[in-house]
Amino acid sequence: FASPYSWIAAERIERLAAGASVKVRWRPFVIGPILRQRPHNPSPTQDAPPAQKKYRRRDVERICAREGLALKWPSTYPRNGLLAARVALTLESRARREFSLAVFRANFVQDQEVSEPTIIAGLLADMGRDAAADLARAQAPENKVALAAAVEEAIGKGIFGAPSVIVGKELFWGNDRLDQAIGWARAPWT
Amino acid sequence: FASPYSWIAAERIERLAAGASVKVRWRPFVIGPILRQRPHNPSPTQDAPPAQKKYRRRDVERICAREGLALKWPSTYPRNGLLAARVALTLESRARREFSLAVFRANFVQDQEVSEPTIIAGLLADMGRDAAADLARAQAPENKVALAAAVEEAIGKGIFGAPSVIVGKELFWGNDRLDQAIGWARAPWT
Repeated sequence: FASPYSWIAAERIERLAAGASVKVRWRPFVIGPILRQRPHNPSPTQDAPPAQKKYRRRDVERICAREGLALKWPSTYPRNGLLAARVALTLESRARREFSLAVFRANFVQDQEVSEPTIIAGLLADMGRDAAADLARAQAPENKVALAAAVEEAIGKGIFGAPSVIVGKELFWGNDRLDQAIGWARAPWT
Repeated sequence: FASPYSWIAAERIERLAAGASVKVRWRPFVIGPILRQRPHNPSPTQDAPPAQKKYRRRDVERICAREGLALKWPSTYPRNGLLAARVALTLESRARREFSLAVFRANFVQDQEVSEPTIIAGLLADMGRDAAADLARAQAPENKVALAAAVEEAIGKGIFGAPSVIVGKELFWGNDRLDQAIGWARAPWT
């Protein structure tokens, strides 16, 4: 939920998939434990040299402008997405998608502090849900264990970054690979 | 010359540019001095965790299969491209393009040791050139200085990786951004 490229991919994937008659299953995980295993660069923001950081901002802005996404840079970066991931994991597929997009937009369009339970509760209430019950389920010990298991499953499938899309046994990493992932789901070319 | 993504971009860019009536100017530089400035990851191969290294191989193979490029993984990686860059810098635009593609293909299709002067001389001879004269010009002190200046110019323009394409003041990084670079050259969208 902290990655602008994950947000862009989340906005794009359903549209691309619908056009190709491909079904998307949203799978929440958190990237922190994966990045912290990096020997050279364990930082949660994948610390880059200044030139590359500057480039990333411009790259995201260009892509958003092209995709018609109303980016407003988060005043805090990265925002901790742990609670949101825990909530997303408890939701069924349609609600999970709707909630995930709401969290991404709160972070990247409305500059809201999505690490805060009150903000997450507000997003759930906007969906017509019982936010208190959702948050309680999200924070229950068994759901924390379930999210840790989801991270392990992601690692087991070769995931090292976000966003990632898996089609069969094939991993595609990044917003830049959405088109290939959809293409592969329709007809693998190798 | 050591980067498979740079090879793929080199193969693709003229085709994309021709279709869009955009003119491409090839500018050789070397990435080693730029990568060595990275605080977290100064390795010339941009050392990645095992999962990401494995992914990169598969990613390159998928892209090559899709683009019809006859990839054969180099038995040595990365091959030092310093001599090839020095030669490329001495060549005029058409010869520079032809030579650069020949070096990339020698490395990524024929698995030749492109760091070796004899291999580079062979590629130049295949172009009908006086290879001995070309190598002498390439290794002349003033040309070594000129390549160092090209690296400084690249850094000054915000380049931090390869391949990079600059359109006006706009930097595009990676084979994944060729389409945007061409699009920007035709009509900037922001």
